[in-house]
Amino acid sequence: MAKLSQRGVNIPASPIRRLVPYADEAKARGIHVHRLNIGQPDIPTPKRMLDAYRGYDEEVLAYGPSQGLPQMRQAVADDYVRRGLPIEPRHVTTCFGGSEAITFALAAVADPGDEVLVPEPFYANYAGFAAQLGIDVRPVTASADDGFHLPSDATLDAAVGPRTKAVVYCSPGNPTGTVYRSEEVARIGRLAERHDLFVISDEVYRDFAYDGVSVTSALTLDCAEERVIVIDSVSKKYSACGARVGFAITKVEPVLDAIMRMSFSRLCPATVDQLAAVAAYATPASYFDEVRAEYTRRRNVLVDGLNAIDGVSSYRPEGAFYTVATFDVDDIDHFATWLLTDFSHDGQTVMMAPATGFYATPGLGRSQARIAYVLGVPALESCLSVLRAAVAVYRP
Amino acid sequence: MAKLSQRGVNIPASPIRRLVPYADEAKARGIHVHRLNIGQPDIPTPKRMLDAYRGYDEEVLAYGPSQGLPQMRQAVADDYVRRGLPIEPRHVTTCFGGSEAITFALAAVADPGDEVLVPEPFYANYAGFAAQLGIDVRPVTASADDGFHLPSDATLDAAVGPRTKAVVYCSPGNPTGTVYRSEEVARIGRLAERHDLFVISDEVYRDFAYDGVSVTSALTLDCAEERVIVIDSVSKKYSACGARVGFAITKVEPVLDAIMRMSFSRLCPATVDQLAAVAAYATPASYFDEVRAEYTRRRNVLVDGLNAIDGVSSYRPEGAFYTVATFDVDDIDHFATWLLTDFSHDGQTVMMAPATGFYATPGLGRSQARIAYVLGVPALESCLSVLRAAVAVYRP
Repeated sequence: MAKLSQRGVNIPASPIRRLVPYADEAKARGIHVHRLNIGQPDIPTPKRMLDAYRGYDEEVLAYGPSQGLPQMRQAVADDYVRRGLPIEPRHVTTCFGGSEAITFALAAVADPGDEVLVPEPFYANYAGFAAQLGIDVRPVTASADDGFHLPSDATLDAAVGPRTKAVVYCSPGNPTGTVYRSEEVARIGRLAERHDLFVISDEVYRDFAYDGVSVTSALTLDCAEERVIVIDSVSKKYSACGARVGFAITKVEPVLDAIMRMSFSRLCPATVDQLAAVAAYATPASYFDEVRAEYTRRRNVLVDGLNAIDGVSSYRPEGAFYTVATFDVDDIDHFATWLLTDFSHDGQTVMMAPATGFYATPGLGRSQARIAYVLGVPALESCLSVLRAAVAVYRP
Repeated sequence: MAKLSQRGVNIPASPIRRLVPYADEAKARGIHVHRLNIGQPDIPTPKRMLDAYRGYDEEVLAYGPSQGLPQMRQAVADDYVRRGLPIEPRHVTTCFGGSEAITFALAAVADPGDEVLVPEPFYANYAGFAAQLGIDVRPVTASADDGFHLPSDATLDAAVGPRTKAVVYCSPGNPTGTVYRSEEVARIGRLAERHDLFVISDEVYRDFAYDGVSVTSALTLDCAEERVIVIDSVSKKYSACGARVGFAITKVEPVLDAIMRMSFSRLCPATVDQLAAVAAYATPASYFDEVRAEYTRRRNVLVDGLNAIDGVSSYRPEGAFYTVATFDVDDIDHFATWLLTDFSHDGQTVMMAPATGFYATPGLGRSQARIAYVLGVPALESCLSVLRAAVAVYRP
C-alpha cells in the first residue's frame, strides 16, 4: 500500500464531531442527547431564505461566476457599507462557507513550513485547514481568568518567529464567546505592522454581541488595505449552516488576486444556495434584535447555572453563543465521553466539545469544555440538571 | 504591505475563464458569443432534481454529516453497485464538487514538494489545486496524433521521480475527450504497483462515452484497495454544475480516514444541494441514452466541420464533450483573444479555451484549443461558420 502524506497523518480529528458516534449510541439506547457540542443554532432560518430555494425556476442548474453571483457580492458589500465600512462587491469572494474562505486566506499568505499566530483556545478547524496546507499553528495562550481576552503585547511579540506570516483570530470568539474591544483589535493591527504580518479576522459571529458591547471589525484598521482579510458567513448570521455560503473580504490587492485565482480553480460556489443567501440579506435588522435578546437570555441561564454547580465555573462571554466552562476534572475528554457512554439523568444527557481540541499547546484545556447555547432556555435548564447530577457522581 | 505566499503567486489563472472579460466586452458591443470554452452543458437538469430544491421544507437549514447525508452516500454507492463495482456508502465522501474531492485526494497522498504524474494536456485546474497544496505537477506529454491516448510505459517510467506520489488522470478526458481502454487503465495500475504510487482517477465523465466504447473504472484494478481514489460528481452527469456536489470514493482505509478528517474540518457539504442530488440519482438510465445520442450528433457535426476547414484538424474523441483541435496558428492565446476582441461573423463569435493552459510543459499547446460541444447542432453549425471565416482572415 502506498504511504499517506505526512499532512494526511497530521490533520486532526474534529473535537466538535469526535463524540458523535457515542452520542448516536446513547440515542440508540433511548437516551435524549442535548447537543451542545456544535454551533448549530435552533433559531429558524429566515423564511425569505427558505422561500428562495422553493422559488428556484431555471431549467439548467449552471455554473456561476467563480467569485460569486454579482447580486451576492453586492448584498454583502451593502451590508458592510451599512455598518460604515466602505467595501465594494469586487472585494468580496463568495466561498464554500467560512471554511473555504479561511483556507484561501491561509494559502494566500503562508507557504508550507510557514507559521500563523493564533490566540488559543481557538476554533479547532483552523488547525485542520493549516495542516492541509502544510502551515504550522503557533499558539499564544489566553486565560479563562480574564475571559480569554487578548494576551499582552510582550507575550504576542515573543511568539512571533521568522516564518510567522499572519495572526489569525476570531471575535466574537469561537470557542470563547469573547469580544475583543476596539483597543485589542488596534493592538493586533500594531502587532501586524511591527512584524509585517497579515491579519486574518474571523468575524462570522459579529452580529452576536450582548450587553451593548460593540464588535470592531479588522477592516477599520489603518493597515486594512495592506494586511487585513476578513472571514464572513451566512451560517450563524442567518442560522443557515447547511447553505455553506461564506465570504473572504479583503482590500489587499495581491491577496484579492490570489484568492480570485484559487476561486477559478474550483469553478464556483453553489448557485441556488447563493440565491437563498441573497434573499437572506434582505432580512430587516430587527431580526437580530430578537435573536440577540434570545441568546442573552440563554447565556445568562447557562452561565449562572454553571456557576451554581459545585466544581464548575464560567466567565460571562460577551458574544457568539459559546462559553468555555472549567470543570473540576483532570481529563475532560474522559468526562465528556462518559457523559455519553455511562451516564444519564431522567433519560437525558449532554454532549459538549472537550476544550483540548481548541488548544495547540499539548496538555492545555484538560479541564475545560466548550458549551454552545444553541438550545432554548427549557432545554438548557435540563442540561444544567444533567451536568449537576453528573458532576456529583463522576468518579474517573 | 506584507508579502503574498509563493504558492499564492504560483496559482495559475484559469485558461477556461481567463477570456471571460473579453467575451463580456464583445457581448456589450452587441456580438453574440458562443461559449464553447467551458464545460457547461445546455442539457436540462433532470426535473426531479430541480423539484427537490422546490420541495425543501425544513425550518432550520442545518449542518449535515461531514461526509455527506446518509441517503446521498447510499445513492452513490448504489450507482456503483449497479455498474458491478462493490462500493459501500462508507467509501463515499461527499464534497464541494469534484474540485474539493481532488483537493482532498491530493492532500492525502502528497506533501509540499512532492510530485504527481499527470498525462498532458490535462484538466487545467489540477495545477491550481496542486499549487494551493504546494505539490508539483510532473507532466507526461500525450500526442494529438493518436488522439491523446496514454503514453508508453517507458515514457511514463522515465517521468517518475523519487518524490512522485501518485498518477492523476481523467478518462473520459477533459480536455481531450479521450477514453482510456481497459488495457490503458491496467497499465496505469501496473505503473502504480511498480513505483508504489496512488492512482487518482477522475471519472466525472464516465456516463459520456460514444460509439459503444466502454469506460473502465480504476476501481476495477487489482490494487484498488491499496491505491485507488476515484473522483465523481453530479455536475456533468446530471447537467447540474451549479449544485457543486461531488464525491471522493476510495477503499484505501488510511486515505479514507484522512479524507474523513479533512471533511470534518470544513464541517459539511451543502444540505439542500445534496437532497437535490439524491433525487437526481433516481433518474432512469434511459436519460443517458438520449443524452449520449445528442452528444454523439454534436461531436460528429463539430469534428467533421472542423476537419473541413482549411488549417484546422481534430481527431474524433470517444467521450466527454470536448475536443482539442489543432489550428494553423503559432499563438492560440492571441487567436482566441482576437476572436473576441477583433472579429465577428454575422454578429457572432466563438469563445474557446486555449490549450496552453492544459499543458504544464512550457511552450506546448500553442496551436491547440479545447472546444466544448455543449451547445446544440444549430449553434455548433454557426460556430463552424464563424471559425471558417475567422481562420480565412486571421493574420496575427
